[in-house]
Amino acid sequence: MSDAKLQRVLSSLSTVHRQLNSLPSSAAPDAGCVKLNTNENPFALPAAVMQSAVAALERQYLYPEDDNVSLREAAAASYNVSLDQVIAGNGSSELLSLLYRAFLDPGDSVAMLSPGFAYNHKLTLLQGARLLEIRSGESCSLPIHKLLFGPAKEAKFILLANPNNPSGTFVPIADIESLVAQSDRLIVLDEAYVDFAPDSALRLIDRYSNLLILRTFSKSYAAAGIRVGFGFGHPEVIGRLRNLQNMFNMNVIAHAVGVSILAHRTAYKENHRHIKFERERVRFALSQLGFSVTPSHANFLLARVPSGRDGTWWQTCLKQKKILVAALPDEGLEDCIRVSIGTKSQMDAFLEAVDEILGAETSPRSAV
Amino acid sequence: MSDAKLQRVLSSLSTVHRQLNSLPSSAAPDAGCVKLNTNENPFALPAAVMQSAVAALERQYLYPEDDNVSLREAAAASYNVSLDQVIAGNGSSELLSLLYRAFLDPGDSVAMLSPGFAYNHKLTLLQGARLLEIRSGESCSLPIHKLLFGPAKEAKFILLANPNNPSGTFVPIADIESLVAQSDRLIVLDEAYVDFAPDSALRLIDRYSNLLILRTFSKSYAAAGIRVGFGFGHPEVIGRLRNLQNMFNMNVIAHAVGVSILAHRTAYKENHRHIKFERERVRFALSQLGFSVTPSHANFLLARVPSGRDGTWWQTCLKQKKILVAALPDEGLEDCIRVSIGTKSQMDAFLEAVDEILGAETSPRSAV
Repeated sequence: MSDAKLQRVLSSLSTVHRQLNSLPSSAAPDAGCVKLNTNENPFALPAAVMQSAVAALERQYLYPEDDNVSLREAAAASYNVSLDQVIAGNGSSELLSLLYRAFLDPGDSVAMLSPGFAYNHKLTLLQGARLLEIRSGESCSLPIHKLLFGPAKEAKFILLANPNNPSGTFVPIADIESLVAQSDRLIVLDEAYVDFAPDSALRLIDRYSNLLILRTFSKSYAAAGIRVGFGFGHPEVIGRLRNLQNMFNMNVIAHAVGVSILAHRTAYKENHRHIKFERERVRFALSQLGFSVTPSHANFLLARVPSGRDGTWWQTCLKQKKILVAALPDEGLEDCIRVSIGTKSQMDAFLEAVDEILGAETSPRSAV
Repeated sequence: MSDAKLQRVLSSLSTVHRQLNSLPSSAAPDAGCVKLNTNENPFALPAAVMQSAVAALERQYLYPEDDNVSLREAAAASYNVSLDQVIAGNGSSELLSLLYRAFLDPGDSVAMLSPGFAYNHKLTLLQGARLLEIRSGESCSLPIHKLLFGPAKEAKFILLANPNNPSGTFVPIADIESLVAQSDRLIVLDEAYVDFAPDSALRLIDRYSNLLILRTFSKSYAAAGIRVGFGFGHPEVIGRLRNLQNMFNMNVIAHAVGVSILAHRTAYKENHRHIKFERERVRFALSQLGFSVTPSHANFLLARVPSGRDGTWWQTCLKQKKILVAALPDEGLEDCIRVSIGTKSQMDAFLEAVDEILGAETSPRSAV
């Protein structure tokens, strides 16, 4: 094989991609672990949803419906918006990626309320753009003034999440509205965890053309593996994003599961009640064990570990006990872990492991 | 809602997308029709594959494996290449879209052997690039000289399909090799229909770093609705494309079905035998009815209709009889229809409808 030929092919790459080597992919999680690191929802689908999925397997040989029309119609009816205000994605991560492609030329910038979703760093890199991280206010409040008049003023769009990840905190919708009303930037509001929270900004999309809301069925509807996400916003903005979608971006199973979940949302009531109950139980238990835990409106907890060790140390110790949690790269969160809320037995296993680690720490031998 | 605000948001779109209005989506096919317009494979999955799919539905709450590692490993083993020579896509259409994003800046050009896959027009538009259509040689032979020394010389990559769509013709792999060896462009070879053809170019990827081969499970493995496609090429090129993929681009069902099809490829022998048998039967029957049919190495036939009417007229008449076929926008193919090869009863229905249309045409009342 001629290396010169390969160099010639690589020199045909676009300006941004010529400068970008192959990026690493993340390691697969260890099998057999209690997985509390990516905020999944470890319950089965409601029986009716499962039946729809199995039935859809029989239509496997037909191309999926173009432009996800039936799924978008079902979402529009369920969330009381119009069809052209909805885009359906292969997870909300696809929709996030479309936003970057639609709005960013190389050299442009995007603003993200920090700490935020780490995947945005990669998406920015792929567009040759810049990610401006704007620190949250005290107690994770919305820094409206900074977002209106700081460097974010030049950003092509501004990314927020409510409830926020990784803090789990929730800001009142009135604050979101105040920002959206005063800003002339597109505000992209990720509501991935909204089903565990007291309110949503969805009612604002009829009033403000610069608000785009992302939703996912990965967190509250136990369907992370199926990949179903939605974007809600002004028809003109939604239309530009739909332009960019790959033909047949979702498969027939994702369509069927999405439509069926929308028809059976009430079947998840007990699921959400369970998660909120366990969240409060674990928060209390961790506080008793010396952690400082942020009150959460999501299906996870951000916990500052007892002094003397950091988040990575705890992540490693817990992994040795087959419990996976997230340590956080963000400035100021080095002493934190993020723990997803799963089943009662998963949370019992987590608390027991924490207890054992603390016991070994304070024992004279101190050998962890 | 302030229109000025919307205009401000739309003015934040990237250079290419500011100039692009919302594009139309294609109409859904009529339910209850015999669907012979998009070259699907209307058979059930092998029982073992179906079982894998149902089993995967139980892992619905977990995020899919990152970077499609298990599926890529299975494809690498099955096709005798290395893991880093394989990318897995949400259909080969996703992989095609990644190529456009990786290689094309606005104003760049891409060359496609014409007639070719119409979706390339849209992909070119979305990059603000130009599609150079290079006409095939006599009897759909490969115009090697034109591809080496014509306008294609400036293209960032060159798109071919073998067997070709919509002609169904097959060019010898030696001709493909001759082009790849002499060209310093990336040659993207779509082998969507290769399982119905006598040979494949896959063995060439170890020898030439400027060859990238696309495969799909939509045509020969009856899985268009599941979205499974592959790209095979030089690790450096494959790595750049993997960079650009959305996180979790395929769902757990697509992973399971893909791995299981690879383990049960021999179970499709009868399927492929059936389709080739029906293809020849329908070709003979159409010839007897006055159509001029190109010999095909795919799961469809390109048929020039009897003189006096064009392809669109036939498409409309057949649709009235609940049979969907493709009419073709390409120059020189106005008098053709493209007919997918399905089950025996589907093909009988098609031939019967053709016969009726011809009968009505030649009857004194001539009322179709």
